[in-house]
Amino acid sequence: MIKTPYLLFLGDAPDRLAAKVAQGIRDWRPENATGQFRLPGCGADLGLKDMTLAEARDAGAKTLVIGVANRGGVISRAWKEVLLEALAMGYDLASGLHNLLRDEADLAAAAKAHGRVLHDVRVPTIQYPIANGTKRTGKRCLAVGTDCSVGKMYTALSMDAEMRRRGLQSTFRATGQTGILITGGGVPLDAVIADFMAGAVEYLTPDNDPDHWDHIEGQGSLFHVSYSGVTMALIHGGQPDALILSHEPTRAHMRGLPEYALPTLEALRDTALPLARIANPACRVAGVSINTQNLPEDEAKAYLAEIGARMGLPVTDPYRFGAGTLVDALQAL
Amino acid sequence: MIKTPYLLFLGDAPDRLAAKVAQGIRDWRPENATGQFRLPGCGADLGLKDMTLAEARDAGAKTLVIGVANRGGVISRAWKEVLLEALAMGYDLASGLHNLLRDEADLAAAAKAHGRVLHDVRVPTIQYPIANGTKRTGKRCLAVGTDCSVGKMYTALSMDAEMRRRGLQSTFRATGQTGILITGGGVPLDAVIADFMAGAVEYLTPDNDPDHWDHIEGQGSLFHVSYSGVTMALIHGGQPDALILSHEPTRAHMRGLPEYALPTLEALRDTALPLARIANPACRVAGVSINTQNLPEDEAKAYLAEIGARMGLPVTDPYRFGAGTLVDALQAL
Repeated sequence: MIKTPYLLFLGDAPDRLAAKVAQGIRDWRPENATGQFRLPGCGADLGLKDMTLAEARDAGAKTLVIGVANRGGVISRAWKEVLLEALAMGYDLASGLHNLLRDEADLAAAAKAHGRVLHDVRVPTIQYPIANGTKRTGKRCLAVGTDCSVGKMYTALSMDAEMRRRGLQSTFRATGQTGILITGGGVPLDAVIADFMAGAVEYLTPDNDPDHWDHIEGQGSLFHVSYSGVTMALIHGGQPDALILSHEPTRAHMRGLPEYALPTLEALRDTALPLARIANPACRVAGVSINTQNLPEDEAKAYLAEIGARMGLPVTDPYRFGAGTLVDALQAL
Repeated sequence: MIKTPYLLFLGDAPDRLAAKVAQGIRDWRPENATGQFRLPGCGADLGLKDMTLAEARDAGAKTLVIGVANRGGVISRAWKEVLLEALAMGYDLASGLHNLLRDEADLAAAAKAHGRVLHDVRVPTIQYPIANGTKRTGKRCLAVGTDCSVGKMYTALSMDAEMRRRGLQSTFRATGQTGILITGGGVPLDAVIADFMAGAVEYLTPDNDPDHWDHIEGQGSLFHVSYSGVTMALIHGGQPDALILSHEPTRAHMRGLPEYALPTLEALRDTALPLARIANPACRVAGVSINTQNLPEDEAKAYLAEIGARMGLPVTDPYRFGAGTLVDALQAL
């Protein structure tokens, strides 16, 4: 686990989109975000207090999280100075960058000298087991998408937040770098060796109280030929009790695959549910989550109503309109 | 690619089963097997000529292949002496052992000193791409199983052999260590990083002549929760034109999963085909391959007839009774 709370390093991010990871932490775990650190020329602002390394440390921050994508895959000189100073001041560092902190000789040496930890969350740090398929106690919910990047993580985070708001037992289980940085732990599933994918998901979602829900972050799509194997491992390793169908209605084709059309929500349901029932015969499709960010509010609401009538399931955009109906559906299972 | 032909190292294998890899090479690529090398006490005999390292080298052998499982995951002193001498004499070494040749300091040093190659076929040696799903030319056939280890590799090897016997264009594409050692190349799919699995299969089965068939070695099963993600990546990365349903009729439960029953062949068909059609809408189920090794011949034949009537498809045990009917089915597609 990454030590919390964090100072969020925005560097010289040109805009808010480049600071997506920091934004996710700020949106979903504000209690983990002590402040933001910006370099001259930074165009992103999370509305957090700007802090120096010393100020944030005095306010309790334990880890400097790189909350921004870097350009050209290089950790710049300007970044390096801050990162080295942070290590010297007692911070751990955490990053989801493609180029690893540990591969930078100066950072590795400084971390060693100061007894600090470099968290490269793209890379698994433990040897996961092979999945054994044994039924686990507690409940699990998994969002499956018609495509990649349709809002599965935000669906899981929204449902987890709503359950905790209601005083229910709930944990968001991160399977990607952004989710891991948001919560401080998880499994970087797309970087796990093939034979251990489902075992990694079992490891991530262990036995729990009978009323406890794990909200497992989905990855890929059964209909996305580049990543469907990862999705399959989530469905079988997660042995979900409930599936949420996730969709983005303005997508013209599968992400990155111009020759592939998106499936219907019905096709997603009819494909995912029988596969999920191999691992958990009691699995149900509990609802539909629509990412309406590209629709004006009236169109969004009309679309949700249309899908609700068509699918006979609770439908919402949990980030825009709240996850209440989906959580109601889980409680009614 | 591993240089052929091979001298097959049987070491001190207690019996023929322990020399399964060497047996596979001998059965399927006899032209690659110059001879066998046995240590005192070896209980396996492939019926090949026993040769010294010098004799096999003079007969043209280029690589010493470890064709036997080792005990306790240790490369013994007795093995080491032979392996070091082989490197000194100009052999490359190839191994599918869990413990890697390259991790043995003396072997690594000797290989370097003599300019030889250590092939650890369990470990990918190249960075595979992410799958792009683009339709490739040529034809591909994939065996999918009701369970793991039901005979998918032998099915593919049998069909490939039968096609080549008929003068047709055909290539067996190995996706596991035994297959890689048999043919000298392939992708160790279960050791590939999750995000690149389907891309590795695309890489393995590139554009080819319109009449050429790739026989892709299957892995795992869509119904085996430990490995289903690997199977999924084969189905989408391989974009098969034809599926062969593979089954072993005496299995009491899914391999290693006592709580999981095997699916029916109908369930396998109805699960695998729609998933395959995501990547290749023209995909068909071409036939059924039954591993009858645990049945006497009359029972085996009766069972094949029963399945043929039930499924309305060509059915055979391709290793026992020949792959002709399955190849006929591919040609009729």
